[in-house]
Amino acid sequence: MRNYGDMDFSHSARSDRLLEQLRDFVETRVTPAVEIVAGERADNPGVPPVTTERLIAEAKNAGLWNLCVRHADYGPGLLFAEYAQLAEFMGPHPLAQEVTNCDAPSNINGDAMIAYGSPEQKGRWVEPQLDGQIKSAFAMTEPAVASSDAANLATTAVKDGDHWILNGRKWYVSGVLHPKCAYMMTVANTADHGPPHGRHTQFILPVDTAGVTVVRNLPKFGYFDEDGHVELTLEDVRVPDANVLGEVGGGFAIGQARLGPARVQHCMRIIGIAEEALRLMCERAPTRSTFGVAVSTRSNVMDWIGEARIEIEAARLMVLRTAWLMDTQGDKASAPHMSQIKVQVVRSATTVVDRAIQVFGAAGVSEDTPLARWYAMLRSLRIADGPDEVHLMGIARRELRRHA
Amino acid sequence: MRNYGDMDFSHSARSDRLLEQLRDFVETRVTPAVEIVAGERADNPGVPPVTTERLIAEAKNAGLWNLCVRHADYGPGLLFAEYAQLAEFMGPHPLAQEVTNCDAPSNINGDAMIAYGSPEQKGRWVEPQLDGQIKSAFAMTEPAVASSDAANLATTAVKDGDHWILNGRKWYVSGVLHPKCAYMMTVANTADHGPPHGRHTQFILPVDTAGVTVVRNLPKFGYFDEDGHVELTLEDVRVPDANVLGEVGGGFAIGQARLGPARVQHCMRIIGIAEEALRLMCERAPTRSTFGVAVSTRSNVMDWIGEARIEIEAARLMVLRTAWLMDTQGDKASAPHMSQIKVQVVRSATTVVDRAIQVFGAAGVSEDTPLARWYAMLRSLRIADGPDEVHLMGIARRELRRHA
Amino acid sequence: MRNYGDMDFSHSARSDRLLEQLRDFVETRVTPAVEIVAGERADNPGVPPVTTERLIAEAKNAGLWNLCVRHADYGPGLLFAEYAQLAEFMGPHPLAQEVTNCDAPSNINGDAMIAYGSPEQKGRWVEPQLDGQIKSAFAMTEPAVASSDAANLATTAVKDGDHWILNGRKWYVSGVLHPKCAYMMTVANTADHGPPHGRHTQFILPVDTAGVTVVRNLPKFGYFDEDGHVELTLEDVRVPDANVLGEVGGGFAIGQARLGPARVQHCMRIIGIAEEALRLMCERAPTRSTFGVAVSTRSNVMDWIGEARIEIEAARLMVLRTAWLMDTQGDKASAPHMSQIKVQVVRSATTVVDRAIQVFGAAGVSEDTPLARWYAMLRSLRIADGPDEVHLMGIARRELRRHA
Amino acid sequence: MRNYGDMDFSHSARSDRLLEQLRDFVETRVTPAVEIVAGERADNPGVPPVTTERLIAEAKNAGLWNLCVRHADYGPGLLFAEYAQLAEFMGPHPLAQEVTNCDAPSNINGDAMIAYGSPEQKGRWVEPQLDGQIKSAFAMTEPAVASSDAANLATTAVKDGDHWILNGRKWYVSGVLHPKCAYMMTVANTADHGPPHGRHTQFILPVDTAGVTVVRNLPKFGYFDEDGHVELTLEDVRVPDANVLGEVGGGFAIGQARLGPARVQHCMRIIGIAEEALRLMCERAPTRSTFGVAVSTRSNVMDWIGEARIEIEAARLMVLRTAWLMDTQGDKASAPHMSQIKVQVVRSATTVVDRAIQVFGAAGVSEDTPLARWYAMLRSLRIADGPDEVHLMGIARRELRRHA
Repeated sequence: MRNYGDMDFSHSARSDRLLEQLRDFVETRVTPAVEIVAGERADNPGVPPVTTERLIAEAKNAGLWNLCVRHADYGPGLLFAEYAQLAEFMGPHPLAQEVTNCDAPSNINGDAMIAYGSPEQKGRWVEPQLDGQIKSAFAMTEPAVASSDAANLATTAVKDGDHWILNGRKWYVSGVLHPKCAYMMTVANTADHGPPHGRHTQFILPVDTAGVTVVRNLPKFGYFDEDGHVELTLEDVRVPDANVLGEVGGGFAIGQARLGPARVQHCMRIIGIAEEALRLMCERAPTRSTFGVAVSTRSNVMDWIGEARIEIEAARLMVLRTAWLMDTQGDKASAPHMSQIKVQVVRSATTVVDRAIQVFGAAGVSEDTPLARWYAMLRSLRIADGPDEVHLMGIARRELRRHA
Repeated sequence: MRNYGDMDFSHSARSDRLLEQLRDFVETRVTPAVEIVAGERADNPGVPPVTTERLIAEAKNAGLWNLCVRHADYGPGLLFAEYAQLAEFMGPHPLAQEVTNCDAPSNINGDAMIAYGSPEQKGRWVEPQLDGQIKSAFAMTEPAVASSDAANLATTAVKDGDHWILNGRKWYVSGVLHPKCAYMMTVANTADHGPPHGRHTQFILPVDTAGVTVVRNLPKFGYFDEDGHVELTLEDVRVPDANVLGEVGGGFAIGQARLGPARVQHCMRIIGIAEEALRLMCERAPTRSTFGVAVSTRSNVMDWIGEARIEIEAARLMVLRTAWLMDTQGDKASAPHMSQIKVQVVRSATTVVDRAIQVFGAAGVSEDTPLARWYAMLRSLRIADGPDEVHLMGIARRELRRHA
Repeated sequence: MRNYGDMDFSHSARSDRLLEQLRDFVETRVTPAVEIVAGERADNPGVPPVTTERLIAEAKNAGLWNLCVRHADYGPGLLFAEYAQLAEFMGPHPLAQEVTNCDAPSNINGDAMIAYGSPEQKGRWVEPQLDGQIKSAFAMTEPAVASSDAANLATTAVKDGDHWILNGRKWYVSGVLHPKCAYMMTVANTADHGPPHGRHTQFILPVDTAGVTVVRNLPKFGYFDEDGHVELTLEDVRVPDANVLGEVGGGFAIGQARLGPARVQHCMRIIGIAEEALRLMCERAPTRSTFGVAVSTRSNVMDWIGEARIEIEAARLMVLRTAWLMDTQGDKASAPHMSQIKVQVVRSATTVVDRAIQVFGAAGVSEDTPLARWYAMLRSLRIADGPDEVHLMGIARRELRRHA
Repeated sequence: MRNYGDMDFSHSARSDRLLEQLRDFVETRVTPAVEIVAGERADNPGVPPVTTERLIAEAKNAGLWNLCVRHADYGPGLLFAEYAQLAEFMGPHPLAQEVTNCDAPSNINGDAMIAYGSPEQKGRWVEPQLDGQIKSAFAMTEPAVASSDAANLATTAVKDGDHWILNGRKWYVSGVLHPKCAYMMTVANTADHGPPHGRHTQFILPVDTAGVTVVRNLPKFGYFDEDGHVELTLEDVRVPDANVLGEVGGGFAIGQARLGPARVQHCMRIIGIAEEALRLMCERAPTRSTFGVAVSTRSNVMDWIGEARIEIEAARLMVLRTAWLMDTQGDKASAPHMSQIKVQVVRSATTVVDRAIQVFGAAGVSEDTPLARWYAMLRSLRIADGPDEVHLMGIARRELRRHA
């Protein structure tokens, strides 16, 4: 059992049992399939790999499906604090999240669609997604502006009868290139004035709508995601009223409600990545020697290892506390804690991975370890979903108010 | 209520009730007496201030006495996790700890004496100490060697009939100058060979024993503690067998057993100090303006405030988890966590206080705020009770073993 | 010879020769007198120690007097780049600067008085000061406001016939408690409106003027300077027109002109302090062993030592370049470089000293090494003479303009 | 003119004139060709792009050829201090170094071959390389060991008549994939015992020798270099005696002699990269606004910009000083300074680029700016050519000796 499993606020027999099953499933079924899936992808780009599909069927049968879905009508209804250790376990794994239907951004889009979707929308989009038939993407960030400030949103949606006409340019849209991607959650301005936070509307935009053009796939530090972080243009894209998610003008609130749990799930996974980086570092250090002694006996490397352990423990406790608050007091009340972990967990993990790279030497920046790829993802996360500085500003304002 | 009061593993109606009482007592009775006590001390150095004595009597009557004593036969028997918020509350207060008999090092000496002392020793030393009649000191560190390595201990105790004769030099001995200080826990080598950890013995050394000479009081960054961090020499100091604490040769183990909870209590108090430094920073920032805007609106200051909140939350969770482990699994099992918080909490608080100093400008390094004094104490704690590097080495070795 | 002596822009036979003489004088005459002077000060506070006076006479005879005075009519006329290595050498010494008349703040006040004073003012104040008969203080910072923004200046001077009446409160006024202190350079508002930088006037304020009251001496982290960093009040203090330094309304410009070289001289001395801290660290590390090996063989300590050498080299080159620019292009053109070194040199030295403290353990925070006192001085300098953040803002604005 | 051009130790009319010519050539001829060359490369991989060849001819005609070659018989014979500003200017440019024959690793291989090669070797390899007909690679690092310790070298060369038979595995071999690459400088063990530094021999290994197999091209954080950082195996590779560079057993010394100037040239270029990153950051910041104000007015961003300017200035001075020492006292005497800049310049530039990325947001991690690619290169350089920790250890040992 992990340490935090011992804490009252995270302890759950159900979660522990699922972790055991999941670990067994991943180790015996999924891990051996990673290279096979990579081969299938390379051979048939744009087609769901048959091995992935087979593993999905197995995961469903094993009850290891939709573990991330909080709503009990649509999934196992695990608390966030219960899901934490499952997400952490899957965090560093290249395939486990997809075959359990817990991969971003579909997992979180699903949550938002369950919360805000109409019965028709749920039938049309959520149910097939939770069944594994389709995936979805998320289109918010725009290249021309600092997207951390919602007031900067430039994409527009103009009413035209019972349709809306969208125009704009989005980038770092995640998930579009997944072979099963059926729709994008897309936010656009539907009002020119009024309070900024009331001007946005979320649309369910089918990816094959006329006027949607994928311009290019975008890398993060040289790494391209197979499911894509694309730039796309929206040119006179027509979307029916039925595809408005929630209220017209309610898009900012939905976006925030969606982003919060997304950040927390990211943090859960990142702790798993940091643990794995630490493990790699600890395995590597004793095997390398310089000037007659193993690197693991050098006190600077021991400082790094010691600090990594501390950082990871602190990060996990912060995430668990946030999850527990979400479970007991709701997402909204937990928002300040989401900001805290968004900054802290990502920064800590970035440092851990960076130091693991240094211990590995040249192998650390190569593809022979996952470290450099993780670093690229983590560094990018200090920008994505709100840069550190915007979160810190929010936390600071709250403190300043509290002491005013 | 503080945030962490909401967590299952720290929540306790008893602790919450005591915190409320303590807060009321401190605010209405102790805080107004701080300057009076300072005056009495200045007027009659070496004599217990009458106001302190009066407050002690009040604290006893109010049931706010010996709150830090874990053993139910000798105190209220609070769990460490229950005591945490009380210690945090008292942490930044200049007088609250003493009037509740929770001041270091007596508080922790008491714990060790309860655990290892003979019935006679308890009657002679512990009971009067827990009654507030006497105080004690702790003599471990030595000037000539790196005391973080126990094998370096240079003070010797040689058997002479039913006595031991101690020779050596200690420094940064805390508590000796307290007017009520009656004895020192003192560690010495009682064996020349054998495993290093079996060579030490702890002695209960009455401060007025012949051969004990206080050489000087030592500052930390210019600050002298009124109760002293002294250098003293032991020259042919005779101590009877009856004053051996625990077993001959068991001194290292007792020392470690004593240091662990001491570190945790330090950490609890330090979180209170960091919170108070953050509060001061948040109060100050809006009142200062440079070049037309309040310092509180500057984004570098907001970064500092946001980071301080994150650091404090992480530190508190780490301390609470450690306390909870001590309560449920014992001190020994919790030792790695004690090391973690010893490093993390002190570092974090040092950074928070340093940034508060920067926000205060010249006032921050003066005596007009407690910040500079706190900084000196915190920076010194990165050395005392085991320097960061020794704790990190221990944590790292554990990780390396775990992954071997 | 020091490394930098080899560089064309600092090489000077004159400076090298003076350094050799100075080193000899300090080692044979001044260093042995340090404790004697301390004793004389303790025995006769408020009186110039006779040994200091004797050493002053010797320094004059040896031609080691007023080395810091750039103006050839008033001193040896060394270039700043030539003075650099002399200042660095004297930087860590407790007495060398005073006996060569190079101690702050008189040294820099002298420069400003030479540049802006009338012939009468020079005769009355500068000449006796350069002769060693009197000292001076500098009163700028005020407790009630953020003094890094000149527009915040609250002290006022109101015209009354051929006098000015000053009212206000200053603090961290350095030099007032020197037994020979005769006057303060004091800045006050002489205009209510108009551009902020034209509202200030500098006054030569004799310390014994009625209405000047020293309230208290202020510490830096517990350390009190013998010459004082005092808080004082000005209550209806009358100063004649003859004591206006430079133009009415020209006080801000004079203050800046004075502060620039002061910062550079501070930086020169601080490099000497950092070098000395590195030396102490390198001497200490091999003598301490933990767990069987000397601390000097631990790679974290080696990292610290290596980084210290790099930081010091970078700092010295930056200071020398700034000095050389001052010599060749004037102080004003060098102002951006003064800001750069103000931030960089102080930060670097603070880190070096902090790490030396860690290597020394408890001795590092005591008075047995100069490290803790240096730390306190250096940390305070991140606030004094303009906090880091104000200098960085200036540097950044310049960069932003350059790339606009 | 750049600032440092004003300093005596770097000022040179020749260098200034060349910089002016080079700038003109690059801006008018090379920069407009960058995309054309990229297209030619994509269309005809493995073939020297005709546009590159044309620009090479132009550079030769313009006297902008082999600027990096110090030896006056083989190039313009610029001092290192003179070359510094040329290298800095070309540092961030994607094509300028190649068309002036100053691209790594051939530039530095050339230097070593001039110094250690026989007349035949110079005729066979150096002259065509300096004429631009061939390129070369450098094979030192090995995947199985920590290559920062030369004693770990695992590749062997065994004498067989008048040939040597090499076996081993190298990786991160730079330059092999350049279409003109003719040979690799390759180091192998030629002795089993004796002092470690006398066991290595350098070989000039033609790339088309039987037994040399390129296994794969290796990325740095996802980025592949077009000229390759390859892994290759040496299986019974036969090299004639005539291809031993220098003495048998002299390979370690040659390697070090080659690496020193390589590091310095890297540092020169990196300063150019840091300057360019700062420029990009300063251009971007005013164009982005969040919450109503331009990012360039936020004080955390201003801190970053200010610190970047300071870091760059310090780095440049350190590099210039090192270059000047190499010019005046030789490479060997300058080795400690090479280590210093290897650590400092790379770290500083990494921080500058990282912060520029943060200011750019998502664009910063994309390919739309060169920032992420520079980051990957810089982070890798904290490992390549000796990791920071090995250089710091060397610097520290020297300090410890100096103070022993």
